[in-house]
Amino acid sequence: MYNYAAFGFNQKDTRNKLIKIMYTFSELSEKINKYISQNLYSKEPTALYEPINYILSLGGKRVRPALMLMAYNMYREHVDDIMDNAVALETYHNFTLLHDDLMDRSDLRRGNVTVHKKWNENTAILSGDTMLILAYQLFTSNADKLRTNDINETFFHAQRTFIEATLGVCEGQQYDMDFEQRDDVTEAEYMEMIRLKTSILLAGALKIGAQLANAPERDSELLYNFGEKIGLAYQLQDDVLDVFGDTKLFKKKLGADIVDNKKTFLLIKAFEKADENDKRIMREWMSKDNADENEKIETFKNIYVKYKIKEMTEERVNSLFLEATSSLGDVMVDESKKEALHKFADKLLRRNF
Amino acid sequence: MYNYAAFGFNQKDTRNKLIKIMYTFSELSEKINKYISQNLYSKEPTALYEPINYILSLGGKRVRPALMLMAYNMYREHVDDIMDNAVALETYHNFTLLHDDLMDRSDLRRGNVTVHKKWNENTAILSGDTMLILAYQLFTSNADKLRTNDINETFFHAQRTFIEATLGVCEGQQYDMDFEQRDDVTEAEYMEMIRLKTSILLAGALKIGAQLANAPERDSELLYNFGEKIGLAYQLQDDVLDVFGDTKLFKKKLGADIVDNKKTFLLIKAFEKADENDKRIMREWMSKDNADENEKIETFKNIYVKYKIKEMTEERVNSLFLEATSSLGDVMVDESKKEALHKFADKLLRRNF
Repeated sequence: MYNYAAFGFNQKDTRNKLIKIMYTFSELSEKINKYISQNLYSKEPTALYEPINYILSLGGKRVRPALMLMAYNMYREHVDDIMDNAVALETYHNFTLLHDDLMDRSDLRRGNVTVHKKWNENTAILSGDTMLILAYQLFTSNADKLRTNDINETFFHAQRTFIEATLGVCEGQQYDMDFEQRDDVTEAEYMEMIRLKTSILLAGALKIGAQLANAPERDSELLYNFGEKIGLAYQLQDDVLDVFGDTKLFKKKLGADIVDNKKTFLLIKAFEKADENDKRIMREWMSKDNADENEKIETFKNIYVKYKIKEMTEERVNSLFLEATSSLGDVMVDESKKEALHKFADKLLRRNF
Repeated sequence: MYNYAAFGFNQKDTRNKLIKIMYTFSELSEKINKYISQNLYSKEPTALYEPINYILSLGGKRVRPALMLMAYNMYREHVDDIMDNAVALETYHNFTLLHDDLMDRSDLRRGNVTVHKKWNENTAILSGDTMLILAYQLFTSNADKLRTNDINETFFHAQRTFIEATLGVCEGQQYDMDFEQRDDVTEAEYMEMIRLKTSILLAGALKIGAQLANAPERDSELLYNFGEKIGLAYQLQDDVLDVFGDTKLFKKKLGADIVDNKKTFLLIKAFEKADENDKRIMREWMSKDNADENEKIETFKNIYVKYKIKEMTEERVNSLFLEATSSLGDVMVDESKKEALHKFADKLLRRNF
């Protein structure tokens, strides 16, 4: 049981002075991995909990919980006190991976067999459902330890952010599925989809961390905005790398989005900028059933080059990055406390973890 | 926004005197249906929310939310104040139906096409996931309106009951699936499975209602016990009716459990009581791939009659029913306030809604 008063939960004005330890991203990531591996489920029925432990153990950078702890750490020192909330978010994230893999019929996740392949589809459905419930259970597990009115409100705000983020991700996933059937997706629709599917959970992680630390509301919003813009930038950069990436760095097969007719920022922009003839060429390739993949990739790549789609996208990535860092700049804490987040943003967009 | 003080949330000792209206089950059921139909989701993306509105609109008796309101109504009058919490539970219940139908590959739900048939499997997965999130969102939607410490704790207790119940149902579903692959299921294991799969949500509904009304803890537990035992009795009765039911009343095809080799209370008891020869006969029928269904049903029915399995099960139903009503009897409110629940239990087991 935690004694919140002991580390200054009610000492709003002096809290910055109390912080002696500022954790780096990798330190937090390691802490989270350790916590997860020590808290796997040893519950019955094993057929339900084994797949949950399996996917939680596949690792990953633990970006979302680390962001939550980083935001918290800007205001408070004892990040362990919200470890349950952080791991709740990671549990939710892994639930989305589990069900997304099932919906996409993917065979591999982080180089390992996916749950619905290793077990079966029903196991994937039910274990995923259970993870979602476990995420809420974990998130609320320390809620009634927070006694004062002040803290209770704090918790409720954080809980609302958590639920809104988890709902948004599902909406984003649905838009993504809808877009597969459509060929008139606009740039605005695309940006909203990736905001929901990718950004909202990164942004939410930061806001929850700030809210649980009882940070000023404006700071919480600024951190949310930082996360949102970083997430959008990351996703647009992903679209560029699919076509123009360095295979050694990107680790995925180049051109997969083109082969799949995925409505990326690049494709949407190309349809916006290209002349009628080039549009016709793209449409023809997209409707071919047995197109030669390399030829198809080459054709789109040439059109993207012709209309400077790559530069256009990179410009947007840069402006989103600037918006993000400007939001972070406005957060009312010492610059030294923002360092970990600045470094994180930088590393993320350099794909340099 | 609610003003809880106005209807006596802090007047613990006098609360019984304040209650002028005691609702019947059907009045509450109607209230809930009205509330659901007036609060369907008009949100985007429609492909996500349409299936949710569809399954929520298929009706049903709304047993679980009605139980929550009935328990609340024993201590407080304004049941509308926890309508969101009640409908949250119903939303959760409908989520389980949606995903269970998918896992069972069922074509019909309440006489209507199931979601995965009307749309597709991915829609069923994602809409179900979203319903689960919406259930938590709805359950917590009025949480931060509850200001005093007293009420906050009350809410946290109710929230914990809610989450534990939702988790238990998934565990029960997994045991149910596990049992399909096993032929050594014990009576104790079976009772635990139906406790989780069926009882825990009925029991939880009552306990949450009491907890949100700030009822004495002992009352909450007694009501939980009442719901748990009624649920178990209902499920065992269901097992009897599958074999010995009146087709007009039961509305399902008789003998379906036998055809499916379902490990029911009757089957488990039969294997416990039958001699070696009858056990061998049952095992042979269960391993036949293309058994004549009517002959198979007749064979099992005769064995059940021979060993008085029906009587044995009905005896258990009766003793569970007595345990339930005895728990209700111990609840510390006027007998007049228990009438609705007594009537409900009676109607439920008479299948007389």
